[in-house]
Amino acid sequence: MSQYFENVPFIKYEGKTSSNPFAFKHYDANKMLMGKTMAEHLRMSACYWHNFCWQGSDVFGANTFDRAWHKPTNEMEAAKMKADAAFEFFSKLGIPYYSFHDVDVCPEGHSIKEYIANFSAMIDVLEAKQEETGTQLLWGTANAFSNPRYMSGAASNPDPEIFTYAATQVFHAMNATKRLKGANYVLWGGREGYETLLNTDLKRERAQLGRFMQMVVDHKYKIGFTGSLLIEPKPAEPTKHQYDYDTATVYGFLKEFGLENEIRVNIEANHATLAGHSFHHEIATACSLGILGSVDANQGDAQLGWDTDQFPSSVEEYTLVTYEILKAGGFKTGGYMFDTKLRRQSIDLEDMFHAHIGAMDTLALSLERAVKMLEDDQLAALVEQRYARWGHTLGQDILAGKHSLQDLADYALRNNINPSPISGRQEMLENIVNGYIYR
Amino acid sequence: MSQYFENVPFIKYEGKTSSNPFAFKHYDANKMLMGKTMAEHLRMSACYWHNFCWQGSDVFGANTFDRAWHKPTNEMEAAKMKADAAFEFFSKLGIPYYSFHDVDVCPEGHSIKEYIANFSAMIDVLEAKQEETGTQLLWGTANAFSNPRYMSGAASNPDPEIFTYAATQVFHAMNATKRLKGANYVLWGGREGYETLLNTDLKRERAQLGRFMQMVVDHKYKIGFTGSLLIEPKPAEPTKHQYDYDTATVYGFLKEFGLENEIRVNIEANHATLAGHSFHHEIATACSLGILGSVDANQGDAQLGWDTDQFPSSVEEYTLVTYEILKAGGFKTGGYMFDTKLRRQSIDLEDMFHAHIGAMDTLALSLERAVKMLEDDQLAALVEQRYARWGHTLGQDILAGKHSLQDLADYALRNNINPSPISGRQEMLENIVNGYIYR
Amino acid sequence: MSQYFENVPFIKYEGKTSSNPFAFKHYDANKMLMGKTMAEHLRMSACYWHNFCWQGSDVFGANTFDRAWHKPTNEMEAAKMKADAAFEFFSKLGIPYYSFHDVDVCPEGHSIKEYIANFSAMIDVLEAKQEETGTQLLWGTANAFSNPRYMSGAASNPDPEIFTYAATQVFHAMNATKRLKGANYVLWGGREGYETLLNTDLKRERAQLGRFMQMVVDHKYKIGFTGSLLIEPKPAEPTKHQYDYDTATVYGFLKEFGLENEIRVNIEANHATLAGHSFHHEIATACSLGILGSVDANQGDAQLGWDTDQFPSSVEEYTLVTYEILKAGGFKTGGYMFDTKLRRQSIDLEDMFHAHIGAMDTLALSLERAVKMLEDDQLAALVEQRYARWGHTLGQDILAGKHSLQDLADYALRNNINPSPISGRQEMLENIVNGYIYR
Amino acid sequence: MSQYFENVPFIKYEGKTSSNPFAFKHYDANKMLMGKTMAEHLRMSACYWHNFCWQGSDVFGANTFDRAWHKPTNEMEAAKMKADAAFEFFSKLGIPYYSFHDVDVCPEGHSIKEYIANFSAMIDVLEAKQEETGTQLLWGTANAFSNPRYMSGAASNPDPEIFTYAATQVFHAMNATKRLKGANYVLWGGREGYETLLNTDLKRERAQLGRFMQMVVDHKYKIGFTGSLLIEPKPAEPTKHQYDYDTATVYGFLKEFGLENEIRVNIEANHATLAGHSFHHEIATACSLGILGSVDANQGDAQLGWDTDQFPSSVEEYTLVTYEILKAGGFKTGGYMFDTKLRRQSIDLEDMFHAHIGAMDTLALSLERAVKMLEDDQLAALVEQRYARWGHTLGQDILAGKHSLQDLADYALRNNINPSPISGRQEMLENIVNGYIYR
Repeated sequence: MSQYFENVPFIKYEGKTSSNPFAFKHYDANKMLMGKTMAEHLRMSACYWHNFCWQGSDVFGANTFDRAWHKPTNEMEAAKMKADAAFEFFSKLGIPYYSFHDVDVCPEGHSIKEYIANFSAMIDVLEAKQEETGTQLLWGTANAFSNPRYMSGAASNPDPEIFTYAATQVFHAMNATKRLKGANYVLWGGREGYETLLNTDLKRERAQLGRFMQMVVDHKYKIGFTGSLLIEPKPAEPTKHQYDYDTATVYGFLKEFGLENEIRVNIEANHATLAGHSFHHEIATACSLGILGSVDANQGDAQLGWDTDQFPSSVEEYTLVTYEILKAGGFKTGGYMFDTKLRRQSIDLEDMFHAHIGAMDTLALSLERAVKMLEDDQLAALVEQRYARWGHTLGQDILAGKHSLQDLADYALRNNINPSPISGRQEMLENIVNGYIYR
Repeated sequence: MSQYFENVPFIKYEGKTSSNPFAFKHYDANKMLMGKTMAEHLRMSACYWHNFCWQGSDVFGANTFDRAWHKPTNEMEAAKMKADAAFEFFSKLGIPYYSFHDVDVCPEGHSIKEYIANFSAMIDVLEAKQEETGTQLLWGTANAFSNPRYMSGAASNPDPEIFTYAATQVFHAMNATKRLKGANYVLWGGREGYETLLNTDLKRERAQLGRFMQMVVDHKYKIGFTGSLLIEPKPAEPTKHQYDYDTATVYGFLKEFGLENEIRVNIEANHATLAGHSFHHEIATACSLGILGSVDANQGDAQLGWDTDQFPSSVEEYTLVTYEILKAGGFKTGGYMFDTKLRRQSIDLEDMFHAHIGAMDTLALSLERAVKMLEDDQLAALVEQRYARWGHTLGQDILAGKHSLQDLADYALRNNINPSPISGRQEMLENIVNGYIYR
Repeated sequence: MSQYFENVPFIKYEGKTSSNPFAFKHYDANKMLMGKTMAEHLRMSACYWHNFCWQGSDVFGANTFDRAWHKPTNEMEAAKMKADAAFEFFSKLGIPYYSFHDVDVCPEGHSIKEYIANFSAMIDVLEAKQEETGTQLLWGTANAFSNPRYMSGAASNPDPEIFTYAATQVFHAMNATKRLKGANYVLWGGREGYETLLNTDLKRERAQLGRFMQMVVDHKYKIGFTGSLLIEPKPAEPTKHQYDYDTATVYGFLKEFGLENEIRVNIEANHATLAGHSFHHEIATACSLGILGSVDANQGDAQLGWDTDQFPSSVEEYTLVTYEILKAGGFKTGGYMFDTKLRRQSIDLEDMFHAHIGAMDTLALSLERAVKMLEDDQLAALVEQRYARWGHTLGQDILAGKHSLQDLADYALRNNINPSPISGRQEMLENIVNGYIYR
Repeated sequence: MSQYFENVPFIKYEGKTSSNPFAFKHYDANKMLMGKTMAEHLRMSACYWHNFCWQGSDVFGANTFDRAWHKPTNEMEAAKMKADAAFEFFSKLGIPYYSFHDVDVCPEGHSIKEYIANFSAMIDVLEAKQEETGTQLLWGTANAFSNPRYMSGAASNPDPEIFTYAATQVFHAMNATKRLKGANYVLWGGREGYETLLNTDLKRERAQLGRFMQMVVDHKYKIGFTGSLLIEPKPAEPTKHQYDYDTATVYGFLKEFGLENEIRVNIEANHATLAGHSFHHEIATACSLGILGSVDANQGDAQLGWDTDQFPSSVEEYTLVTYEILKAGGFKTGGYMFDTKLRRQSIDLEDMFHAHIGAMDTLALSLERAVKMLEDDQLAALVEQRYARWGHTLGQDILAGKHSLQDLADYALRNNINPSPISGRQEMLENIVNGYIYR
């Protein structure tokens, strides 16, 4: 099998004293923590698009990568080589899951008929590859944003035939995801937004989106897909404004269309920061609303205003995020999906391994730190204690709806209350967290 | 009456050829447009706090203003002088409305009892002043963020007694607003957010807020207040993260607690941009969700990351915003409230007039431009036409829920659809808008 | 000649009452203002790259434009068609200047030899086109950032052969610019920056850049090029950090290498805002340092963190900028170059005209407003007056270096000084400016 | 002595297994690394202003702290109590240095005479305290930004008497710093900038600043002060634009006035990020320009647009920064100064200790990691190797100025060069760094 990455060995866990760049220092797949293996906790997934479709271009520069699988002029032949390379990579890396868009894995063809045929042929290939290697599908999705027909949106397009085209892709991509036993189906509305309000009817476009999502939910039940449906928030890019701006906005949208029990969010770290939030905030918000589905585990650049999709390297950030997820019960169908791309100057095949090894070690180490934080229960206890006064009569009665504003105004005057604030202890709590991270 | 501003004349409309800095160039209160006067369309309001309470300090510097009404050491005496100055200013300026926080107009005292007594005494004063001058109240509100007791939130505080204290203030401020015939009651949750997730339970704090808002709604009906209840979104500042982040977030919150028909938003231009949106976006979003209430008409600084609360000077921006509001039917109870402060170096009393005259002229001119845009109907017609295909069978059937994903996939294949995109014409539309602004 | 744009007429000035979308409302090329025509003041230029090379792709989407001149498979044939289309467009639009990169106008070939031959052949074509149409060259430049060889920089590359490759391109592009009577030669260091400090030696890279710029200056004198040399600042994108961050940074670089009298800046509006400055700031800074060369006249999006290169539509912004430039004596060799691209959804050829007409009208109107502001001299007089105290003895002696810190400390104590601040009058000044813009 | 902090013990090093919140886990003052103690490497300093002057207010809220030393109504008495508290705190914390502004330590009085008398009296007190406790002065500075007289700048003020007032303060603050054996004198131009370009003459204000700085340099030599002079860059806040925007801007300013060998920079982490740079960038830039002086060691909030001055907790960030400083030879006169303030909700005296202990441990751990990185020399060797080709003939000749553009164009053609790019290996380098941080 080893054909594209023959210079790279199968990646193994060697422990943190290893100086072998092609070994894990922290990710020990079968290590048990809180009753599950590391692999089961993290459910890590590599992506098809950045690794096997993108060739190193950026807005100001041409392709820098020179990959064998892009050379064949026959598109289906290239797609098969790409699949060979992809599964060889997943296997050597030892990552349990992968994720794809429909047109990552097959040529989109020149008609719907060709699209269906190509996609179907490649799903056969992927199914065989999954069987052969044991790599599983974390999620599938349809790309309804790259083709020029989607320049003004897919479900929110002013043309219902373009809506229909998108529906067709999602229909086939959902079916393929089910067939490949995908654990989730994701919807990222890369063009569901606007470039200018001058030509846009927000209410109408939101209604179209609501209708589309209802059809997706209906189809899920119809085909018996048991995975989760996930919307991936992003505030902008490529559009000026994207309707699924952030988790809170998606929640409002789901509530508006009565879908809040059917669809969850797939939060991406770099999308969170582009939306003006910390990654931790988006995760905590989704957990508190009960809609966390999965995570696109990457890292943005704090100084750049676009999606850099870097590989995660911050244990400081991922420890907090992992702690939050564990506290909420851990991943169910979701996982940590690396929606990450090499820096354009990292042109060698080896760089794909360096990047993923670093990312997987970052998450493994973060998991270990977070598990310890959770097991000790020190932080959660301090938070609980901060709100303890709400457990007493006044607080309980307020929350139970027993008091009106007037009741409280009377209570306050009668008792001449003058409550004193209590220290929030932020710095002490930060020290406690650092105590876990730098043990 | 003229005592504090004796060097400034009553401000009159003199038309755009006037070079008198103490005259309106565009704001002609009684000019009729689309069946209403300019004054009725714009419903402009000056604020009490920045004009009469703030003394020119900033984070790095002491007070620069030297106002007569801050000199008395007796607090109630100072409050009365402040009211004299305020209504003299409103009258000379010729602005029809004003807005206040409870503790802008009275000393907060050293106990709830004192607070109630002081506030009540000052409401008597304000009522007389309104009567005397004809100035009306656009909205009232309670300041539940400045006192140290609110450092960790008011309704979202970990202490139910602090929640109670805030409820007491809101109770009295709502009652006062009703008595003064205020058109709206506003809630800005300046401390309803978090400094660090490490000590915060998001779900619990949101539940507290939901409960609080329900009590406010109940009280409105109980006292027969017929104005609107408004939440004012802001993403951060003073907190790290404020729960009423932006319009979409507030909408989700209202839906979560079933309050979407009871509470609307008061959108502030500078808060919109701090949240990563254009001001136009926030207005258009609120209109499309049916929750636009009122507007805090100011202007931020595109390069600064905090609330600068500058006076609006951009006709380019306000024309679009005013067009959006007119298109949605215009203000009902709301209006354009100047939540604006002088630059700290603008230390003279005359500067208060320069600033408000410029702001009022900016809005008046924007109104004229927007009215013309709406009357011509050119833009709206182009937008309508862009979505025309949704009026045909396919579009209508989709929106009516007659099609499943599978139906659409079948339709697409059967018809071998290949829809072509149509130009979005953004630049042409921008030219049309500029054609109105620079007529 | 009319072949590509046959549906569009030659664009004429029709005045502001015209409703013809294919006419200028404000740009009246030969109208005299302050002793020069509008055309001479503004020196407007269209660009080759966005209009004739870019095909509507973005990071998440494929080409949306379908231009005839991209169809030929023979690259030189396509280059000639492109030149035909470009000059037809410039002529119909009536814009006096254009600007290009070497590889905009010719295929780069597969060797230096081919590059030279292709470029030379196309310079012949351009020369004939200029002669034929009267369109002139505002500036030429070399693209040393798109080819993968430049992924780690051109002059700042770790490989001196890549430095040499860039030098070769600049050599030929400067020679071509001279031959075509270009008024300026521009250097934009799109890859002169870093992706990560972990692999970067800042001092060494800056030395390489300094050496490169010295060679460019030497070559200018050697070939007798009488135009200006210009560096175009940009903070980032495509790199994480670009060395020519902003005007102040470029000034420091020029001073470090003794080049401050040889090279000026080409300021781009959208680069200014990405660097955290207002466009006005960058222009005023360059004027105050005596290094303003030319302007890339575009407009960014205040909410987006990347270079959107939109067509300028804000008269409010361009009036201030044009006022600043006029105050500093107006453009010498520089001009307003439209480094602007259509929105990707504006796919029709007509959109190219709408966009440029709007931009040219915006600048023409801004010029008219700025001229009036300058002629009245009201603003400049108020600024002068603000500093008047520096004209007295104390101020003059300080600036003349006659006082030490101790002298001043003695003076202050002896005179017991307690100077009072004076109002900065910002709001009044803003009203004055609006009085000119909305006359 | 223990009077204000009697509930807190002297802070000692207990090692990383300690769970005592009032102990250092990593900061072991006398531990030897690379021939110096930790204390000598880090030269950590606490600040007077945030700890002992600020009372917990923010723009939207009143003081939350309730400190004994603010209670006396006699200002000099309060100043002395503050000094008692400050030196008790420094001693208990075991931090070797402190830093102050003139008016932090004394009341500014109502005249220059009073200012001089108060300041002088308090310098006597500080001198005795230093003697008594062994705490040393890292730097002194004058506050020429808080008093209303400075609202429009100090050295850049339109009034030369205000320039003179600032000169007077700096004169006395420099003298005091010398007397107290301060290692540096710092100048932060908090108001040296503009609020609006409409009333500002940039060239004139820069000239005033240049003159001021020359006087400061002259005074240094005159009084024989042997410490360093440092300018602290900041992009904005409180002003709209501050002239000392960032390190590169300060460098250009110093070059313009010939001061680049006399003044260095004091870089603040949070100012770096507000300027759009990473903290690491600013440090590396200053090192590469040879002007790094000292560091204000704090941490901003990636989502907030103002100076939050948080205590540093990121070992990931400080390891890189410390590595950069060590590589450049380590601190000479400078050090890590905590320009940090408690969160406003951290109201207890204990919180001052939690915060500083966490910060000092963060820096100590970062130092250990950075020392190991430097000792291994792996990173520096990889960087060196990346540029190795510049050591060969072509590179050496270019840098030596032996080649013109034409020479290089000839060389390229003659040799038909086609240099290939080499991987930048960013991800591998990030893994190496993480290998040191998480050993």
